[in-house]
Amino acid sequence: MPKAVDHAARREELATALWRLVVREGVEAASLRRVAAEAGWSMGSLRHYFETQGDLLHFAMELVTRRVTERIGALVLPADPRAATLALMEEIVPLDDERRAEMHVWLAFSVRAASDPALRRLRDDNHRALRDLCRQCVEALGVADPEAEAERLHALVDGLALQGVLTPADVTAARIRAAIALHVGAL
Amino acid sequence: MPKAVDHAARREELATALWRLVVREGVEAASLRRVAAEAGWSMGSLRHYFETQGDLLHFAMELVTRRVTERIGALVLPADPRAATLALMEEIVPLDDERRAEMHVWLAFSVRAASDPALRRLRDDNHRALRDLCRQCVEALGVADPEAEAERLHALVDGLALQGVLTPADVTAARIRAAIALHVGAL
Repeated sequence: MPKAVDHAARREELATALWRLVVREGVEAASLRRVAAEAGWSMGSLRHYFETQGDLLHFAMELVTRRVTERIGALVLPADPRAATLALMEEIVPLDDERRAEMHVWLAFSVRAASDPALRRLRDDNHRALRDLCRQCVEALGVADPEAEAERLHALVDGLALQGVLTPADVTAARIRAAIALHVGAL
Repeated sequence: MPKAVDHAARREELATALWRLVVREGVEAASLRRVAAEAGWSMGSLRHYFETQGDLLHFAMELVTRRVTERIGALVLPADPRAATLALMEEIVPLDDERRAEMHVWLAFSVRAASDPALRRLRDDNHRALRDLCRQCVEALGVADPEAEAERLHALVDGLALQGVLTPADVTAARIRAAIALHVGAL
């Protein structure tokens, strides 16, 4: 394996070990020492890739954004704008374990970002990117007030993501899908 | 002051000191020692009211619920169901500093609740109470599918609360109000 690829793969391995810890025990459990143990690494080896907990947290949140962005980029979108909106929004809400872990990490980091400027910048970038995506969707649907409808769609999707992570027994994948479909159908 | 009232007032004083810490530095900063310092109390005095950090966190989250419930109970609701829905939902979203602090604490505790069973029960109770309120609102509006519309309204309000806490510069009080009004008008 070329060295650069190997380096990137190892950083992702550590970041996903941090994800597992965050999902299981919360972001407060995600010390470098715990992440090294979770990944089966020594602290010395981990520090070769991440010098501080802040570096690792930042990378792990970037990785969430990157994975969502890659999945969206790989979608073959239907021509119908309603079907396309549904397909796009479904990549952002927690419909399976992978997306639930991503959203859990995103949520834990977002809350932590309130007292961490570097994470806050990432969170704000995510927020703007999702707003832009919502705006493109509602513009394609030809709604009367795209700005306001983009805000409403964005809030709905963020609320479903929050609920899907925090109350998964009530807000199941089927209900998340149904809520988005109801909303897009009513636009 | 009667002793029972005094006791309750002191517990609220400590809980609101914890709120300030959570808003400023995150729930991970809210140790009993830091809360005592924030309130200007000794650790010994604090321990007279709360034995563990868990007790204090639990009480502080209950206090959020109680304050929201009291505000809602004190509302004189308009007869028009749309106006009544607006008035009710506006008590739950972060439209001023008080409600922003409440929602911030609720959000930080909700995320922590993923790994804390006692907080999770409180979070789930809140979730059900807000869902019931949403259902009463949409039933009064005579929508076709009250269950699905209650879920959609609930997700929208949770999403606006999340965004109002985490990205207040973009999701301002005016925009939160406008999004709820747009939604209720379209129901």
